[in-house]
Amino acid sequence: MTLTFTDPVPLTHEQLEEGTAFAPRFDAAGLVTVVTTEAGTNEVLMLAHMNAEALALTLETGIAHYWSRSRGKLWKKGETSGELQQVVELRTDCDQDAIVLVVNQAGRGAACHTGRKSCFYRRATLANGTAVLEDLGLPRLFDPRDVYQS
Amino acid sequence: MTLTFTDPVPLTHEQLEEGTAFAPRFDAAGLVTVVTTEAGTNEVLMLAHMNAEALALTLETGIAHYWSRSRGKLWKKGETSGELQQVVELRTDCDQDAIVLVVNQAGRGAACHTGRKSCFYRRATLANGTAVLEDLGLPRLFDPRDVYQS
Repeated sequence: MTLTFTDPVPLTHEQLEEGTAFAPRFDAAGLVTVVTTEAGTNEVLMLAHMNAEALALTLETGIAHYWSRSRGKLWKKGETSGELQQVVELRTDCDQDAIVLVVNQAGRGAACHTGRKSCFYRRATLANGTAVLEDLGLPRLFDPRDVYQS
Repeated sequence: MTLTFTDPVPLTHEQLEEGTAFAPRFDAAGLVTVVTTEAGTNEVLMLAHMNAEALALTLETGIAHYWSRSRGKLWKKGETSGELQQVVELRTDCDQDAIVLVVNQAGRGAACHTGRKSCFYRRATLANGTAVLEDLGLPRLFDPRDVYQS
């Protein structure tokens, strides 16, 4: 990767919040949190993380790259499943420790490894003092057993 | 708080991903990441964190509560600014370590402490091999100097 980012440490609050320098505040593990949303509908598709390399590759290639915490490696989203994400816009927040990535979801349109469009396919409700989950009914756009064969 | 959550540790992958037990996977600091979106538009307003107490209070009261990592305390959003968030829906993701909180933003409609509707008011673009931020032009709905007096 050739792209580097501004070091946030010497920046003032004002520079961080109102400036034009992109100075992502990676956490102790070297990651920023990323919310991926669908262009047009604004629906939240997934939540993931990027290290500096994934962030640079995403900006340079226009294809979403993340850092997989479970696998401990760079993750080009859709490399196995075909569900690539084409970047429409990349936003950061006031204190530059989070990203909103606006994408067009390619392939069958499923961002979630379960085959659904979004990872957020259940809502929590209260029932007799207990929190339970209710499925929102998002259809499966692929069968994960066909896509992720080990 | 009276509400408790299912312990995710003994659950299988299948139970965690397809079950009806709400078993939030709090991280080592006892937190889950929360994406707060606006009902109707789906716009991402902010990204924050909840501990078990904040999550329970949010479900029980219908008003968004978070854990402030910078202040190290429970944070009833809008307690100082008046910008309360009324919960419309609370969703969790496939592996139950993230929350989407769908809200109606009360007060002046500003979720961000800078006075803007959303914390994500800048986009990153590439210019001559450097990533720079461009303001998206979100208006300030309040002057933070008037709201947060120390």
